Amino acid sequence: MPDPTAAGARPTLEAVAAHAGVSRATVSRVVNGGAGVRRPLADKVRRAVEELGYVPNHAARSLVTRRNGAVAVIIAEPEFRIFSDPFFEQQVRGISRELTAHDSQLVLLWVEGPGDHDRIGRYLSGGHVDGALAFSVHNDDGLPAVIRRTQVPAVFGGRPGWAGQAADRAVPYVDCDNRGGARLAVRHLLGLGRERIAHIAGPRDQTSALDRGDGYRDVLLDADPALIAQGDFTAASGARAMAELLQRRPDLDAVFAANDLMASGALGVLRERGLRVPEDVALVGFDDVVSVAEATDPPLTTVRQDIEGMGRLMVRLLARVLNQGEPEPGADTPGSVIMPVELVRRASA
Amino acid sequence: MPDPTAAGARPTLEAVAAHAGVSRATVSRVVNGGAGVRRPLADKVRRAVEELGYVPNHAARSLVTRRNGAVAVIIAEPEFRIFSDPFFEQQVRGISRELTAHDSQLVLLWVEGPGDHDRIGRYLSGGHVDGALAFSVHNDDGLPAVIRRTQVPAVFGGRPGWAGQAADRAVPYVDCDNRGGARLAVRHLLGLGRERIAHIAGPRDQTSALDRGDGYRDVLLDADPALIAQGDFTAASGARAMAELLQRRPDLDAVFAANDLMASGALGVLRERGLRVPEDVALVGFDDVVSVAEATDPPLTTVRQDIEGMGRLMVRLLARVLNQGEPEPGADTPGSVIMPVELVRRASA
Repeated sequence: MPDPTAAGARPTLEAVAAHAGVSRATVSRVVNGGAGVRRPLADKVRRAVEELGYVPNHAARSLVTRRNGAVAVIIAEPEFRIFSDPFFEQQVRGISRELTAHDSQLVLLWVEGPGDHDRIGRYLSGGHVDGALAFSVHNDDGLPAVIRRTQVPAVFGGRPGWAGQAADRAVPYVDCDNRGGARLAVRHLLGLGRERIAHIAGPRDQTSALDRGDGYRDVLLDADPALIAQGDFTAASGARAMAELLQRRPDLDAVFAANDLMASGALGVLRERGLRVPEDVALVGFDDVVSVAEATDPPLTTVRQDIEGMGRLMVRLLARVLNQGEPEPGADTPGSVIMPVELVRRASA
Repeated sequence: MPDPTAAGARPTLEAVAAHAGVSRATVSRVVNGGAGVRRPLADKVRRAVEELGYVPNHAARSLVTRRNGAVAVIIAEPEFRIFSDPFFEQQVRGISRELTAHDSQLVLLWVEGPGDHDRIGRYLSGGHVDGALAFSVHNDDGLPAVIRRTQVPAVFGGRPGWAGQAADRAVPYVDCDNRGGARLAVRHLLGLGRERIAHIAGPRDQTSALDRGDGYRDVLLDADPALIAQGDFTAASGARAMAELLQRRPDLDAVFAANDLMASGALGVLRERGLRVPEDVALVGFDDVVSVAEATDPPLTTVRQDIEGMGRLMVRLLARVLNQGEPEPGADTPGSVIMPVELVRRASA
């Protein structure tokens, strides 16, 4: 428990200003780096700070009362994916805003390949950050093990599915209801009277993609395997998968793509072939990344997850972990959150 | 001077492996965090490391023999700009590759607004990075002062133009020949017989944009001010500026846009108005951001700067600063580099 008397006895910014005979704003500027304050004035303030034993109140504002005031955001994807997929932008935006609200500095790292793991591990072990937020981890990814070894508290974006994860220390994470969302999408297409509903699947090594595929199969128990094509969450892979599907099953009348970018790639191929969307082929995406789903022609019906909100939640969860300490090995992951999703109806289905 | 005898006497990875009775790969894994190595084996290796006094060779590989092995890349732009302008991606890619080659960890920071400066200053002051690379700084930007106060060695991308910069400590930077490149562009349009060449200018508070405007005026000394419209380097601002120019000077027959993104925005407006490019209006951009300049229809004639190469150079310059110490106040900036540019002819002009 903090001692209110002790807290009250701490010299305030105002006291320093009065002591130095300068404005509160000047003291604040000097304490925060001194930009724009002339030398003699800054020296005066620094003397007053020293004489009164003033301690700036950063710690109180920061995410936790640890020393770094910084959190690493690690995206387990190469740089070209991060800058080309607006999903990451929205997630990083949510994280950035919440960290700013906690007065904690976001430092963004990414992973070009496993060769980067050692260096990232050394950085995290170096005591430069209070915690880590990691997302887009793949199931064969060595990154979670690297993060675990560093003992830096971490929260994951997306349900962990990596090897050995089950036996591992409980890992708090934030995800959306991927499987339920996929069911919503497929049921919507069934409700429109579609009978040959194809699926463009996301990468086989990410739980989000696997869960969306499971949701598709939950509803279409006897789906023809020829109606399922493999993508990797990029628009180009959506186009390739669409071309494959049309070759295998030219009679298909609907497509559920596991994300909006792949749906946008599929849409391009459908138009090239002269197929009308939604009249000939109804199309549903996943994510509701606004810059994609609203920009296509026609705009995409899609499953909305609150991407920015999930980013914010990751920060709050990390703050809780930092304040309460690590969960025990083998314990439940009481902090993990599965966020609801909803179907957003636009013109494509 | 390193003592070769002492260096030779340092126990090697191989010696540790032999001592512990394990493979070289296992020692390497344990030394680099221990991912994937079972506990008893890892303990054996750690004992051998201790007994032999083995020191991993990180320092030798790292950018400099400082302790952090990390460099901050600070983009003085809000997150939505960073993720939507492929220029930043290319520059960051160059930096990232060069830092990886130096075994130094890139940590990316950005600036939503001046309210972030204090926090960034505290982070830099916290001793978490060996140096900083900053780019897209604006002339009224408080960021350079913040970085200077922290005394973290820094290299800038783009010629410094901020207030007080001239009187300041010499600041090493990397830039391209913006003014010469603009002259190339305008002379090319003149060479095509164009007589009413408009300019879509970049932000008034960035030297790159100002220098390109100066290059335009170097060639067209008596250019009608109505032929110059203001943009901010985004595609949307290029479209707005193009609409303005067509209203003021419907007789214009060429446009030099200060970057490719604005040229792509201008192109959209020209097509909407039924103007053919290059027949009715010839169009030249600047940057040669491939994902923009090659993707437009018609592809853009533009001034190519080696964006990725500039990123790499920034890292090399920083390495030199870190190895040689800071330049003296008022000294020249011997390390700064102005890179040449070239005109790339495509269909738009």
